[in-house]
Amino acid sequence: MKFELTKSFLEQIEVAVESNDIQFIREEVCPLHYADIAEILDEVDLETAQFIYKQLENEQAAEVLVELDEDTRNNFLASLSNSQIASQVELMDTDDAADFIQDLPDERKEDILSNIEDVEMSSDIASLLSYDEDSAGGLMTTEYICANINWTVAETLENLREQAREIDHVFTIYAIDDYERLLGTLSLKTFLYAENDTLIKDLYAPNPISVRTFVSDKEVANIMEKYDLVVIPVVNQAGVLMGRITIDDVVDVMREDAEREMQLATGVSEKVESRDSVWIITRARLPWLLVGLLGGICGSLIIGNFEGQLGLFPELAFFMPLVAAMGGNVGVQSSALIVQGLANNSLKLNSTFAKVLKEISVTLVNATALSFLIFLYNFFMSESYALCFTVSLALFGVIFLAGILGSLVPLLLHKYKIDPALATGPFITTLNDILGLLLYFLIGYIFY
Amino acid sequence: MKFELTKSFLEQIEVAVESNDIQFIREEVCPLHYADIAEILDEVDLETAQFIYKQLENEQAAEVLVELDEDTRNNFLASLSNSQIASQVELMDTDDAADFIQDLPDERKEDILSNIEDVEMSSDIASLLSYDEDSAGGLMTTEYICANINWTVAETLENLREQAREIDHVFTIYAIDDYERLLGTLSLKTFLYAENDTLIKDLYAPNPISVRTFVSDKEVANIMEKYDLVVIPVVNQAGVLMGRITIDDVVDVMREDAEREMQLATGVSEKVESRDSVWIITRARLPWLLVGLLGGICGSLIIGNFEGQLGLFPELAFFMPLVAAMGGNVGVQSSALIVQGLANNSLKLNSTFAKVLKEISVTLVNATALSFLIFLYNFFMSESYALCFTVSLALFGVIFLAGILGSLVPLLLHKYKIDPALATGPFITTLNDILGLLLYFLIGYIFY
Repeated sequence: MKFELTKSFLEQIEVAVESNDIQFIREEVCPLHYADIAEILDEVDLETAQFIYKQLENEQAAEVLVELDEDTRNNFLASLSNSQIASQVELMDTDDAADFIQDLPDERKEDILSNIEDVEMSSDIASLLSYDEDSAGGLMTTEYICANINWTVAETLENLREQAREIDHVFTIYAIDDYERLLGTLSLKTFLYAENDTLIKDLYAPNPISVRTFVSDKEVANIMEKYDLVVIPVVNQAGVLMGRITIDDVVDVMREDAEREMQLATGVSEKVESRDSVWIITRARLPWLLVGLLGGICGSLIIGNFEGQLGLFPELAFFMPLVAAMGGNVGVQSSALIVQGLANNSLKLNSTFAKVLKEISVTLVNATALSFLIFLYNFFMSESYALCFTVSLALFGVIFLAGILGSLVPLLLHKYKIDPALATGPFITTLNDILGLLLYFLIGYIFY
Repeated sequence: MKFELTKSFLEQIEVAVESNDIQFIREEVCPLHYADIAEILDEVDLETAQFIYKQLENEQAAEVLVELDEDTRNNFLASLSNSQIASQVELMDTDDAADFIQDLPDERKEDILSNIEDVEMSSDIASLLSYDEDSAGGLMTTEYICANINWTVAETLENLREQAREIDHVFTIYAIDDYERLLGTLSLKTFLYAENDTLIKDLYAPNPISVRTFVSDKEVANIMEKYDLVVIPVVNQAGVLMGRITIDDVVDVMREDAEREMQLATGVSEKVESRDSVWIITRARLPWLLVGLLGGICGSLIIGNFEGQLGLFPELAFFMPLVAAMGGNVGVQSSALIVQGLANNSLKLNSTFAKVLKEISVTLVNATALSFLIFLYNFFMSESYALCFTVSLALFGVIFLAGILGSLVPLLLHKYKIDPALATGPFITTLNDILGLLLYFLIGYIFY
């Protein structure tokens, strides 16, 4: 039932295109879901993709275009004329249309918009393009169904027939006043069972949860998730209904957000994907590696200070990397749990202090267990009691310190409105590496 | 418009509860959205929570219970009698009801189910409880709206009135045959504008995208995301309609999944949250720290092998942590991008090899830049050319190696059906630490 793209199917398609076998494409590819066709077009070369694209019906072609990967989409945009693009854009929802032409140069965008016959639509798209891409305004579509509160059910039904024609999914009817201000919502269910002469004002549920156009997409995602919403209306500052956001667009935001957090934690500083160019990926990663490099140089200076000691007792060097690495590991663990708590709001008001205390308890348990183990190892394997004590004490100290820093740094960043996810990455690792080395040699200085 | 829980409001509530001020609770708390009330109950102590809970209306109380944190929910479950729970469960959707009593001992579950007056509902809940929690069956609700294909629109409308009474959101009407097998879907919009005597069989859209009960929740999330679905029907092996999954439940799955991936990457081996006990958190973290510890011990053995060299040239020790740490950093970066590509399916069939090649190019650029920088630093700051060359060459080598391993290990894990996210965590860091040290001393051995 579910389509799965296989290598052999791709090969069949390529053979069919090469031999100009239109029938194969029409019978095997065109009946697929547009998301599946887009997946195929993303995989084949541009010529094959264009061949398939030409066999699609108009509506379907527009749906496929919306689903394409950024790279493939840009290739298509480059190969289509402005009037061709305009005729496709006319078949899209306004939010998809705005996303579709968003990255084109301004001149081309204007030319495409002027080629759209439906003037209302082109002005809707133009206004969507003016919002910040990462805001509720940039996420919303201007297709929605509304009813004036003074209409009767029968009048509304008549009106809906007109409005609903171009809307695939009707979730909710929005009740508005004469100034188009959003007053409430009306479920289709209620509507379905209302008498024909009932007024909308007697049916709608007031105080709907809505967002302003400038609210960030992340905030929209949090609100929709918290209140289990499938669709949310967007209003401007005067309370006028501007559009609606459906959950499928928010799901994409959430996915991107989770990926971004993961990238910060693993030391990639921009939003990159594996399909970006070598240069873009390098630019995203090098800064964090430079942080690591600088940290390493600091470390080398610290070690350099204890050069004499090292010359006398080279065994001290054996456990340097262990102590430094463990500090990094523990710091990342602690910070990750705190960052996650901050992100999903499970770290709340009263309980922050309690959570940090718990984090410290966990760290103490871990520090005790690990330094005991390394003590046992050194006790049996090495001949130096000084080494035994130095390594174990330093390990205990560095784990403890890393646990505290790992909890506090994200909280501090959060307090100063900096993304706390920064603290799960190379920053905290490097900091703990350096502190670990310092502690190690200071303790070593005492025992040797 | 949007509720935000503040400390001062919590304090007001606590004062009100202490002074038995029922009016304050009724006026300030009860009118809030159930998700907001749940947020409050999660924050206050059990007695205060129970006081507030008693002021809620029956329907609202059930909705609040569903939204509670696991801890708070368990406290409530412990304080309520089985018949009290049963009367609340009767007001929930079957999927929420099953989730709500899921963790109770079997005996108590049975007793609660036998206390539910609606026999059909209690048997629905019982059957939902039998599915794996992480499968489509465990995620679905048995409340849906269906119409036999032989019914007319008028008959269906009559029937719907009955069915829809207890369903808040109607997204789609499912068309079924006499054996309750799912044949297609019918949007409310189509239904709204159909003639009364049209048969459902002439209206429905065939071949709906559906999932089997045993499909994993992650797979359900991927399908719904790919096809932009708001609701998906669940069928058994005979094609009989068993239930439906709405996107709000899937959003939770996605959130949890992203968190789990993040935890693996940061070295936490079980699904833990910051509210779990010290013991559970420790158990989740210690294993990964032990991996790090073992790696550190391996490292110490490697360094020990070069003890003589270190004694003669202690400056070699200065850059040991730098080389080890950079290997770890690069390895985590490379593996994270590959793991992400695997998770969101952007790493596809044809292109895996190309992506790995690109990853290696990025690594080469980074390796060249960083080893050049450290060469400059050592050239001007140190007196030993041997050190200059050793550190730069070792750094180049370790970054290159880490980049290759970081790309290949997740691909290998994926091939053998092991979660590739494992490779972004302490495992890859530790491996690269050790390899880095080995490479460093081998190169040092050549130059000194």
